[in-house]
Amino acid sequence: MTDDRRSAGAPTLEDVARAAGVSRATVSRVINGVRNVDPAIQEVVRQAVSVTGYAPNRAARSLVTRRADAVALVVSGAGVEAEAEAGVGAEAAAGSGAGGGSRATAGGGGSFTAQVFADPFFGRVVTGVVDYLRPRGMHPVLMFAETSRARDEVVAYLRQGSADGALVVSTHAEDPLPGLLTEAGLAAVLFARPARPVPISYVDLAHQDGARLAAEHLLARGCRRLATISGPLDVPAGRARLTGFRDTLARHGHAYIPVAEGRFTQESGEVAMERLLVEHPDLDGVFAANDLMATGACHVLREHGRRVPEDVAVVGFDDSSAALACRPPLTTVRQPVEAMAAEMARLLLDRPPGPSSPATSVIFEPELVVRASA
Amino acid sequence: MTDDRRSAGAPTLEDVARAAGVSRATVSRVINGVRNVDPAIQEVVRQAVSVTGYAPNRAARSLVTRRADAVALVVSGAGVEAEAEAGVGAEAAAGSGAGGGSRATAGGGGSFTAQVFADPFFGRVVTGVVDYLRPRGMHPVLMFAETSRARDEVVAYLRQGSADGALVVSTHAEDPLPGLLTEAGLAAVLFARPARPVPISYVDLAHQDGARLAAEHLLARGCRRLATISGPLDVPAGRARLTGFRDTLARHGHAYIPVAEGRFTQESGEVAMERLLVEHPDLDGVFAANDLMATGACHVLREHGRRVPEDVAVVGFDDSSAALACRPPLTTVRQPVEAMAAEMARLLLDRPPGPSSPATSVIFEPELVVRASA
Repeated sequence: MTDDRRSAGAPTLEDVARAAGVSRATVSRVINGVRNVDPAIQEVVRQAVSVTGYAPNRAARSLVTRRADAVALVVSGAGVEAEAEAGVGAEAAAGSGAGGGSRATAGGGGSFTAQVFADPFFGRVVTGVVDYLRPRGMHPVLMFAETSRARDEVVAYLRQGSADGALVVSTHAEDPLPGLLTEAGLAAVLFARPARPVPISYVDLAHQDGARLAAEHLLARGCRRLATISGPLDVPAGRARLTGFRDTLARHGHAYIPVAEGRFTQESGEVAMERLLVEHPDLDGVFAANDLMATGACHVLREHGRRVPEDVAVVGFDDSSAALACRPPLTTVRQPVEAMAAEMARLLLDRPPGPSSPATSVIFEPELVVRASA
Repeated sequence: MTDDRRSAGAPTLEDVARAAGVSRATVSRVINGVRNVDPAIQEVVRQAVSVTGYAPNRAARSLVTRRADAVALVVSGAGVEAEAEAGVGAEAAAGSGAGGGSRATAGGGGSFTAQVFADPFFGRVVTGVVDYLRPRGMHPVLMFAETSRARDEVVAYLRQGSADGALVVSTHAEDPLPGLLTEAGLAAVLFARPARPVPISYVDLAHQDGARLAAEHLLARGCRRLATISGPLDVPAGRARLTGFRDTLARHGHAYIPVAEGRFTQESGEVAMERLLVEHPDLDGVFAANDLMATGACHVLREHGRRVPEDVAVVGFDDSSAALACRPPLTTVRQPVEAMAAEMARLLLDRPPGPSSPATSVIFEPELVVRASA
């Protein structure tokens, strides 16, 4: 249907310029999103575009500008075969990451995409990216790369110039995509540092500082028999949150802290809490390395007749929508995911031209948000 | 950086054909995703593409094929000004729809995008769309249209040929976008029928039948003092679920059913449940028109010392991840959102060429999923 609008007789740039009473060059600048055009003039041109029905062909423009004005937003895993899909996403490199476990059986049948969206984390990434791109006339192309074929497709897509670069949220420590992108000389920025050293730009959180805030808060409440539900320990964020929690407590004389490893899903938090309760029935404080696991812990504590926070105080991590949905609402460590995602987009688009700009990193500071659970 | 790869000396289609030991035509067919190419040959060509580093230019191809091989996935609202953003999304036309309320303050500061992703519904739509598009070498471009300017941008984007059509999830009964798209002669398919008559294709659920399943289940359990938390009543799905529930009960002699109207958010479910409990403290069964509101109802019932399901049985709607995350896990009416979203993509891509193909509709059947809450 759009074809009809490109046939002879279709409105031209000149028609728009005439209707707006400005030069062709000005129309072109507004249409191509050049900055520093007077907002009033932008508005006049936009109205003229609307009145005339002018539609510049984006493919033709891309050929000239060599820019796609699009960004790929890629959620990647570590799977090799398509058959591996159902098993991926249980671990998450990116702070919180892909949901999964039994929850994925509701609303999605356990596919990688369903697992990704089961966690409120990813929606926050999209929000931050869209809020940054949209005022710049750009939109994210959503891609998933959990198999080797899907990764090849992402690399090919970028090589074709279909997008000007990739924003990558990696859900697995073994994810090869960051390495593939840098080897191909493609522009990319990661959410969270890569688990293996790769010369690629990223945004991340000071995870250890966040865990320190959680530990200090639990100590200040008077908790003395503390335990933690960690994230997957092959993931930098999982390791760093555990280290930060333990180191802070060690400085306060707590030499040994029981740990149950989870996978950043609500279900894995439930399983971990059951185990901790069996082994340490007298515990009075728990730090869970994300809000979904903290929610699972609260469910299990209640089922065992423990009041939160009176008997056991619980602190989560992320400050996602799960923190407010939980009963009681979670005291948690805020990760400013939206701001981090926006910064990721800024790093990608503001990079100096040329294939060999050095990798850069931006680290955000966590913040304690006190609600009812601790 | 991709520019470097297009300069003189860059690998050509001939290089790939030589490396793969096949004809240029075969390489072209594989690269352009033509079906019915032997999978073994596809693999050989893909490896040759990888080895040679060949990258066909997508913009150039789009100019020839007049297809973008991209689809816009648009979440639209009804706002007029950018300033209206924070207020939109409270109501949802699409079955479940945009989250909001107090939850949006965690993880997003209440922006439209944040509200959309606070509801597990939208992730399921993305999952279904991606699972359909990906094997066809296509990817969704994610767009939000909650203001008049954003709507103009979506229309311009499609007119420019940047995408071959739009899949639209409307979050508000007053959304003007479906009308704008049909007026512009652009290809589009809606999730859920439009609140006002517009000649546009859509997929939808038999909502009344779903509500009937909920009513019959509560009656079969022996519940006799029933109430319902409805969705927003200016939205077709909200109205249809209420009508289906009431009509079924009327046929069983229940002439009057108390209703509290919610907005498809957990918080609105809590407020509605509080009100119902004050006015009808002896109720023994509640049908909430989505899982988030049912979760809120369970929280409030527990806070008032009512056991679910022993004292009050609760049935939700959607079978989203919220249904399994709830304690107790929710008995609910399953809306096959992923299958519906895939069908939406199929309708868009399989449409007959030409601007005036008639609007078509596909209605899915709901299913009762029995868990612990009723």
